[in-house]
Amino acid sequence: MLFRQVYDHIMTRMERGEWNADDKLPSIRCLALELGVNRLTVFKAYQLLKQNGKAYVKEKSGYYVCPEGESQLGDRHDEQQMATSSAVQMNSKLSDIHQVTAAYRFSQAVIDPNLLPNLFLSEYVKKVFDIYPKLMGIYSTPQGDEELREVLSRYLMRHYRVHLHPSEVLITTGAQQAIDLLARIFIRPMDAILVERPTYSAALDIFRAQGARLIPVAFSPAGYDMDMVEMLMKQHRPRFFYMNPTFHNPTGYTLPTLQRKQLVELAERYRCVLIEDDAFHEMYFEERPPQPLFTYDTEGWAVYLRSFSKYVAPGLRICAVFGRQSVIGPLIAAKSLADNGNPLVTQKIFVHYFQSERMQQHLEKLRIALQIRRDIMEEELAAASIDWRWTTPKGGLNIWLRLPDTVSASELFDESIRQSISFVPGQICDPLHEMQSWIRLSYSLVNEEQLRVGVQRLADIAQRIQKR
Amino acid sequence: MLFRQVYDHIMTRMERGEWNADDKLPSIRCLALELGVNRLTVFKAYQLLKQNGKAYVKEKSGYYVCPEGESQLGDRHDEQQMATSSAVQMNSKLSDIHQVTAAYRFSQAVIDPNLLPNLFLSEYVKKVFDIYPKLMGIYSTPQGDEELREVLSRYLMRHYRVHLHPSEVLITTGAQQAIDLLARIFIRPMDAILVERPTYSAALDIFRAQGARLIPVAFSPAGYDMDMVEMLMKQHRPRFFYMNPTFHNPTGYTLPTLQRKQLVELAERYRCVLIEDDAFHEMYFEERPPQPLFTYDTEGWAVYLRSFSKYVAPGLRICAVFGRQSVIGPLIAAKSLADNGNPLVTQKIFVHYFQSERMQQHLEKLRIALQIRRDIMEEELAAASIDWRWTTPKGGLNIWLRLPDTVSASELFDESIRQSISFVPGQICDPLHEMQSWIRLSYSLVNEEQLRVGVQRLADIAQRIQKR
Repeated sequence: MLFRQVYDHIMTRMERGEWNADDKLPSIRCLALELGVNRLTVFKAYQLLKQNGKAYVKEKSGYYVCPEGESQLGDRHDEQQMATSSAVQMNSKLSDIHQVTAAYRFSQAVIDPNLLPNLFLSEYVKKVFDIYPKLMGIYSTPQGDEELREVLSRYLMRHYRVHLHPSEVLITTGAQQAIDLLARIFIRPMDAILVERPTYSAALDIFRAQGARLIPVAFSPAGYDMDMVEMLMKQHRPRFFYMNPTFHNPTGYTLPTLQRKQLVELAERYRCVLIEDDAFHEMYFEERPPQPLFTYDTEGWAVYLRSFSKYVAPGLRICAVFGRQSVIGPLIAAKSLADNGNPLVTQKIFVHYFQSERMQQHLEKLRIALQIRRDIMEEELAAASIDWRWTTPKGGLNIWLRLPDTVSASELFDESIRQSISFVPGQICDPLHEMQSWIRLSYSLVNEEQLRVGVQRLADIAQRIQKR
Repeated sequence: MLFRQVYDHIMTRMERGEWNADDKLPSIRCLALELGVNRLTVFKAYQLLKQNGKAYVKEKSGYYVCPEGESQLGDRHDEQQMATSSAVQMNSKLSDIHQVTAAYRFSQAVIDPNLLPNLFLSEYVKKVFDIYPKLMGIYSTPQGDEELREVLSRYLMRHYRVHLHPSEVLITTGAQQAIDLLARIFIRPMDAILVERPTYSAALDIFRAQGARLIPVAFSPAGYDMDMVEMLMKQHRPRFFYMNPTFHNPTGYTLPTLQRKQLVELAERYRCVLIEDDAFHEMYFEERPPQPLFTYDTEGWAVYLRSFSKYVAPGLRICAVFGRQSVIGPLIAAKSLADNGNPLVTQKIFVHYFQSERMQQHLEKLRIALQIRRDIMEEELAAASIDWRWTTPKGGLNIWLRLPDTVSASELFDESIRQSISFVPGQICDPLHEMQSWIRLSYSLVNEEQLRVGVQRLADIAQRIQKR
């Protein structure tokens, strides 16, 4: 397994342009020293590079980078290699998929703008500018607007009885930036980190770019295998565990309360930071989800990312990071370097809207609308004469669908795109680039009519593939 | 010189928490291999760490990190070391200085919010929301709003006759994020880069955090020493030259047209990217500055950063990066990972305001207001019976003041802060942590009355120090 991570690490550095065509790669000894791994591991990674047509050997001189064209040729040599290479390409495909303008976009876990109270929000913005007429002329501090941080600190207190000082809150541009900044302060090349399997693919891209060694933790409807988590923490001493325990993306699963408490204990014992990404918390259907894992933490091992981009106002890109000084301090320093602070305009609009009654009403309506869409998607999936399986999500935006063995996700994907239907193949959510029998379908963006028609068409395509 | 850069590199990694108190540092051989430098260089860096009380030696086992307390003690041993240590502390002081709530804030190169057309802007925002009522519900692409990129592409064409396609423009959160993303895609640890001396201190912080080896190029009122620049490019093969050639921060100097053309030639010859940071271009007093260096580039070696945060609307944090696909491509990928795109709200507000007639009127008034403030500052500086010297800035926000030898910047700084006057000590703008006889005074934030009184008081303080 480890050599595969070293392989990915080298590929990342090649993609970054650190080593170009016909450059000499570092000697096995040097790279082993730099990455703190065994020479045999580097040797195996170099062998795989050679096998995949990414590197070639010059007698007595070492390994060199293959020019692009030749690497393509190299790939055609056998089936096995084709698979590896397509996995690597899949790696960077989420943004590509999002570029596709399909009629039935099940690929984007984004809320239909028609479900957001846009007109009200626009009116609201005008009020905010009446309150702060000079808003446009003022910079925010890198940490974020103090008024906003106070409001969020009170919010945590009121909802979860957790006391955090406003100085322990950082505002970022969406959860994406929070994950990137955390990766920058925690990860050195080849550091082990735990990630759920499957997980948010953009987070995987960030961690890989930072050179992390990804240790997967399977997420099932029952949660994690806690003995396995403990063993992995013991064995790999990961810097952190990046998790999305509530209405998880892509599966929709939720980690039970007991495991939340156990994880906090494990984190303390093995000094492993828990990064809890909680973007979907408020998007529950029947009942409230368990408390954030973060609220059980008394020793400061948990960092809580609460994005409001998805459901309050995507246009504002506001995410809050809650954590103890030991993490928030370095994070503020990283944020200062990265962009010196979010715009003040968007923070002020957010803080006033967030506290309004209208916001609560919006949320209640939104939950109902999302639940209806989930129900429609499930109805249509169940009506199809295909043996696909899923676990009903109790919140969030996605259904994680297991295809029958006779239908491969990549075949279904190619055919669907041709018919203007998009979804996310499971493979790109998998730290191991596998999970080829799974796909993520988002029911949040397309309207009810499109949902019905789109899923019916998807089922037709799957059926045709099955019959071949 | 090189060992000092290795020293800074190790200090950065210690500050990041990569190596903590009593951790063993890498062996000299390993670190030399990792950084691609001579072992002797690493040895010298370790010696300096030891001397400064940052590391200690265990017999036959190597170098270890000193705990914080002891390092403080270690520093007291001799004068030389005190200086080194205070230079390192100075390093992270710009944000600290900005936290100081002085009555006379000459430390911030920010435009007085009273000089911005705030009320008009607020009215403007309301119009924008009337045009795009669903603005709040929509994400921008990572690269930035297409309408905005088209407008900026046309702007370049109209003003400088340079044709760049909208796909060759990237929108970032201020110039700060553009610099950070460029550092991330270009710099590997110990890569050489050229920086002006003095320069924007936050850029130095970013480059150091990324592990760059900083090669200084002196910037005088006459520009750079071009032979020296060529020699440095030849010798160090720098990845890029980060420059701010127009109304330079902190000096206010402007690079002459001839040198701009020569630099573009040198960049091609030595394959050194030119990063032209041009935040002050529109803030000229008597006449327009020379064309951006970027406009002379035909081979794609120049990247042009044009921030509008300073003078259009700081609250929006909009910066545009212009460059060829070979740079913009990786930059978009980095931006996607970093935060997946600026908020759409701020981009739409900006694009409409930027094209308005009112914006042109504002700019003309702003130039006059800034010129008046510069004149007042110069008047008061000249009236003081102190032999300080400066070159009149023809634009921008700052005066770069050389103190008489009898007055040290750090003494003046400590005393000024006590009397509620802030400025930026030259040392933190210097890649070599020297320039202790220089300070940066910004005339853009404080009003005319405060300018007079503040400079008079500063002169009084300097005089008292001189007489001691």
